[in-house]
Amino acid sequence: MMEKACDGECDTCSKAETCTDEKKQEYEQKKLLEKQKALLKVRMGQIKHKIAIVSGKGGVGKSTVTANLAVALAQHEYKVGVLDADIYGPSIPKMLGMRGEQLRAGPPGAFPAVGPFDIRVVSMDFLLSGDDTPVIWRGPLVTGAIRQFLSEFVWGQLDFLLIDLPPGTGDAPLSVMQFIPEMDGALIVTMPSQISQIVVRKAVTFARQLKIPIIGIIENMSGFVCPKCGFQVDIFRSGGGLAIANDLSVPFLGTIPLDPAICDSSDDGISFAMKDPNSKAAKAFAAIVAKIEEFVNSKEPKVKPHEG
Amino acid sequence: MMEKACDGECDTCSKAETCTDEKKQEYEQKKLLEKQKALLKVRMGQIKHKIAIVSGKGGVGKSTVTANLAVALAQHEYKVGVLDADIYGPSIPKMLGMRGEQLRAGPPGAFPAVGPFDIRVVSMDFLLSGDDTPVIWRGPLVTGAIRQFLSEFVWGQLDFLLIDLPPGTGDAPLSVMQFIPEMDGALIVTMPSQISQIVVRKAVTFARQLKIPIIGIIENMSGFVCPKCGFQVDIFRSGGGLAIANDLSVPFLGTIPLDPAICDSSDDGISFAMKDPNSKAAKAFAAIVAKIEEFVNSKEPKVKPHEG
Repeated sequence: MMEKACDGECDTCSKAETCTDEKKQEYEQKKLLEKQKALLKVRMGQIKHKIAIVSGKGGVGKSTVTANLAVALAQHEYKVGVLDADIYGPSIPKMLGMRGEQLRAGPPGAFPAVGPFDIRVVSMDFLLSGDDTPVIWRGPLVTGAIRQFLSEFVWGQLDFLLIDLPPGTGDAPLSVMQFIPEMDGALIVTMPSQISQIVVRKAVTFARQLKIPIIGIIENMSGFVCPKCGFQVDIFRSGGGLAIANDLSVPFLGTIPLDPAICDSSDDGISFAMKDPNSKAAKAFAAIVAKIEEFVNSKEPKVKPHEG
Repeated sequence: MMEKACDGECDTCSKAETCTDEKKQEYEQKKLLEKQKALLKVRMGQIKHKIAIVSGKGGVGKSTVTANLAVALAQHEYKVGVLDADIYGPSIPKMLGMRGEQLRAGPPGAFPAVGPFDIRVVSMDFLLSGDDTPVIWRGPLVTGAIRQFLSEFVWGQLDFLLIDLPPGTGDAPLSVMQFIPEMDGALIVTMPSQISQIVVRKAVTFARQLKIPIIGIIENMSGFVCPKCGFQVDIFRSGGGLAIANDLSVPFLGTIPLDPAICDSSDDGISFAMKDPNSKAAKAFAAIVAKIEEFVNSKEPKVKPHEG
């Protein structure tokens, strides 16, 4: 018969000497989870707004949106943190020009790396020994890593924590949503193609089933204008984001055009919105950021730029 | 003390009446896994060549490459199957114009759906009730589904089984590689951007650690030519695939240009290589297919178009 872990403290238990190793380990595991749960509550309680950036499908520019949103909010004087929850393909550090940073640890816990505009970032990328190193983990380890990132890191007082979720509806997105039940909302990033639209429907249902409000849909890589002759080509089609937002009764936040400058900026670790604020893409993005601020400010408590 | 499942048959065991439910369940589970393992060996033994299509990062066109490769091989008179192992975002059925197909089951097992050119396809998409339905599963369930797809489906005699893996190095890719240790090789699909290159390094190391030969790297979305003025714009940069292939001593199979016709074809469920065989993209793809055939034919036993 399988026995459950007992409720006594191992170090004060009278049966400790005759107890099995499995039982002791199970107890230690239980104690660690309880500690993390308590810490999670404290850490997340110091953050006014938590926003998850999701996409059903990979490669739609979710991390680009997250990195640029972080910079835009930080420029508006908010205190911003980013959790790169893509354990297998972390790309936030590259996009914020923070590759090679180290995470420091002290008595209260580990500290996020500090990037441009004082943005605090935690990413698996900081913990890998080299570019070649893949994280070959099964789901439970991923869940454990995310729990640690959220609970054992000293995020401090923040106005915004942006969480860049990996695509899909598997362990990582599910864990984040369950660890932060008080999530303000989810931003959904998509591409105009029909294939992407099918997956967006899944992402919307996923958020709804987990009772996370949907801030809105952003259509990325929408239309391309030839820099030489001005001819517009919809490489990945166009308009799909708006159509699906209407169809699912979800706010549509805007489109970001396909622009080689965005890929260059991401590769160079600079925010495209900062690099050329007058570009069509930067202006489109600024309008989207305004809508996101409006969404969070419509909720209580009102967010104001953080004092100090 | 935790007890292990016994080795006796529950139905003939003298202790069955006093045995615990946990122990009986554990035994049933063990028996099912053994049955699936035996079936897996039989099913996979009937397939001459198994190729995994991988990418570290999502959205690089891995499914587009898989679907078009399946059509190209089937046009060369090979018998082809495709396992869509992307449980969370299955897109092969859409790309092969097979959405809404049903999987049938009979005494020997379940049957793959049959698509264009007699291509046999198994995908989570066929099992979902609607477009909105997300698969909200943790890793162990994904592993179980893939084991079933490979062992309990009657794939029959095939020359090629193409396995479209989800991005990353998590449960699904790991399970596939472990279930099919005799995999011929992995095709790695990437985009030219630097961000994608970082992730490709991880994919190569992943395949190497699992001792899967690497057939080569394909650079997708490489360069864009304005259809009006002919001006070339490298929207996602260009040349990164070749550079990384050289750097990692992996064969480079070729580039596929960024072409709106490819996205249109995928959305319309038609192979872009078939739709306009004279396009630059179709010709580039045909050259890549030739290299893949060369790779498998250099191995014993030689593959010939399947008789009958």
